[in-house]
Amino acid sequence: MIQPEIENHIRDDAFSNWLGADIEIIQPGYSRVSLTVSETMLNFHGTTHGGLIFALGDIAFAAASNSYGCTALALSVAISFLRPAALGDQLVAEAKEVNSGKTTALYDIVVTDRKNQKLVAKSQATVYRTHRSFA
Amino acid sequence: MIQPEIENHIRDDAFSNWLGADIEIIQPGYSRVSLTVSETMLNFHGTTHGGLIFALGDIAFAAASNSYGCTALALSVAISFLRPAALGDQLVAEAKEVNSGKTTALYDIVVTDRKNQKLVAKSQATVYRTHRSFA
Amino acid sequence: MIQPEIENHIRDDAFSNWLGADIEIIQPGYSRVSLTVSETMLNFHGTTHGGLIFALGDIAFAAASNSYGCTALALSVAISFLRPAALGDQLVAEAKEVNSGKTTALYDIVVTDRKNQKLVAKSQATVYRTHRSFA
Amino acid sequence: MIQPEIENHIRDDAFSNWLGADIEIIQPGYSRVSLTVSETMLNFHGTTHGGLIFALGDIAFAAASNSYGCTALALSVAISFLRPAALGDQLVAEAKEVNSGKTTALYDIVVTDRKNQKLVAKSQATVYRTHRSFA
Repeated sequence: MIQPEIENHIRDDAFSNWLGADIEIIQPGYSRVSLTVSETMLNFHGTTHGGLIFALGDIAFAAASNSYGCTALALSVAISFLRPAALGDQLVAEAKEVNSGKTTALYDIVVTDRKNQKLVAKSQATVYRTHRSFA
Repeated sequence: MIQPEIENHIRDDAFSNWLGADIEIIQPGYSRVSLTVSETMLNFHGTTHGGLIFALGDIAFAAASNSYGCTALALSVAISFLRPAALGDQLVAEAKEVNSGKTTALYDIVVTDRKNQKLVAKSQATVYRTHRSFA
Repeated sequence: MIQPEIENHIRDDAFSNWLGADIEIIQPGYSRVSLTVSETMLNFHGTTHGGLIFALGDIAFAAASNSYGCTALALSVAISFLRPAALGDQLVAEAKEVNSGKTTALYDIVVTDRKNQKLVAKSQATVYRTHRSFA
Repeated sequence: MIQPEIENHIRDDAFSNWLGADIEIIQPGYSRVSLTVSETMLNFHGTTHGGLIFALGDIAFAAASNSYGCTALALSVAISFLRPAALGDQLVAEAKEVNSGKTTALYDIVVTDRKNQKLVAKSQATVYRTHRSFA
């Protein structure tokens, strides 16, 4: 549904690849990304680091908001952490456009535990929409 | 200023160590953490990934809010991204308590570029304060 | 669906009544509230004041989160303003619980224009849940 | 410090006047606004309504962000409620620019109780900066 050059460009993301995130779907205004929590992703309480949970959602957010092929830049994200995640959990992040204006767009991002489908975190996020094509 | 067992526990953070973050200071209600942006931390636009910038701030936030030795759990973080950061930039995150109530506390987090002292991101963040000692 | 004493207590809200808000529905974890924009609710740009739009959503949020009869206290709200609203517009705010934990709960709040069903604002909001009954 | 026509335009705010807010200071990128809590501003718990507290901060935010004479539009506000306020309390909101970019600017907003100087609420807020003069 989106052009291969755009999809390839989005998938060529160093941080996402380094974390081992799997970009499962990119559609116009939507993306789903998953990742299995490894030992390197834990905090000093022994649960999944909040920074990792945010990063997973951010990868989905970037994929969804750049899916039209024009550079979208994150302005702000408000994240709520709802449940801890443990070593070995498979986390799934979905970002979905809920509004698109002339210069900004709003996305909902949810991170869930694939096994029990429970919410781990939820965000509301805004991008600035440029009209520069990147691919 | 904070007990060595508490400080050692906070420094024993797998994700922070994996990212190569340097926890420079932990004081009661305050922390400063730095990191140099490597190639693995870039996004598909070629700038520093928002997830990495958030994670750096989150490491400072966790250190500051757990500095009293009782488990503090992040409830919500609102981050604003202000400027891109590039490969090789040294980023510095500072988290500072601005209010502490019976069950929650509020922190300001700023991420700056060490060289030019410009703001890269700024957050307002809330923790739930338990009364369980972790060290 | 909720006890009359609880509903009566929630409806006895001075600010809501002063603004002329109509609390249309209160159900467990949900509420819908509407209001028609009057001249006193405009800002110096001539559109509906952001403070009024937030307040309308906050009335729905308070009704939904207190619907169980125990005092719920707002901790944080992240609101995104999506479209201006004009004099005479009927605005509808809906608040819906998306997660409920032991000590906190998360709500989604949307404010729409009743006529064209377009989004005016959207929020993600957290309450602290006490176990004190208020009615 | 700011032009009289700009200041007059900002002060001509219907909602602010209706609430009885006193815009004490408008300077470039800064504003201070106060208000005394009346009976009409209470919620069903008997404390000051969150919507009123937000609105007060929003009046200061609008004055500060429009102080340059070009229309600034609120994109998002993340507010944390820190302490209840009571009938008769004099609340003071201050909004201060912390960053200004080409198309957006970031503000810190604090609402304090004038008598005891304690924080009631704190926000981080973003405007979209147009280049249209309004006065």
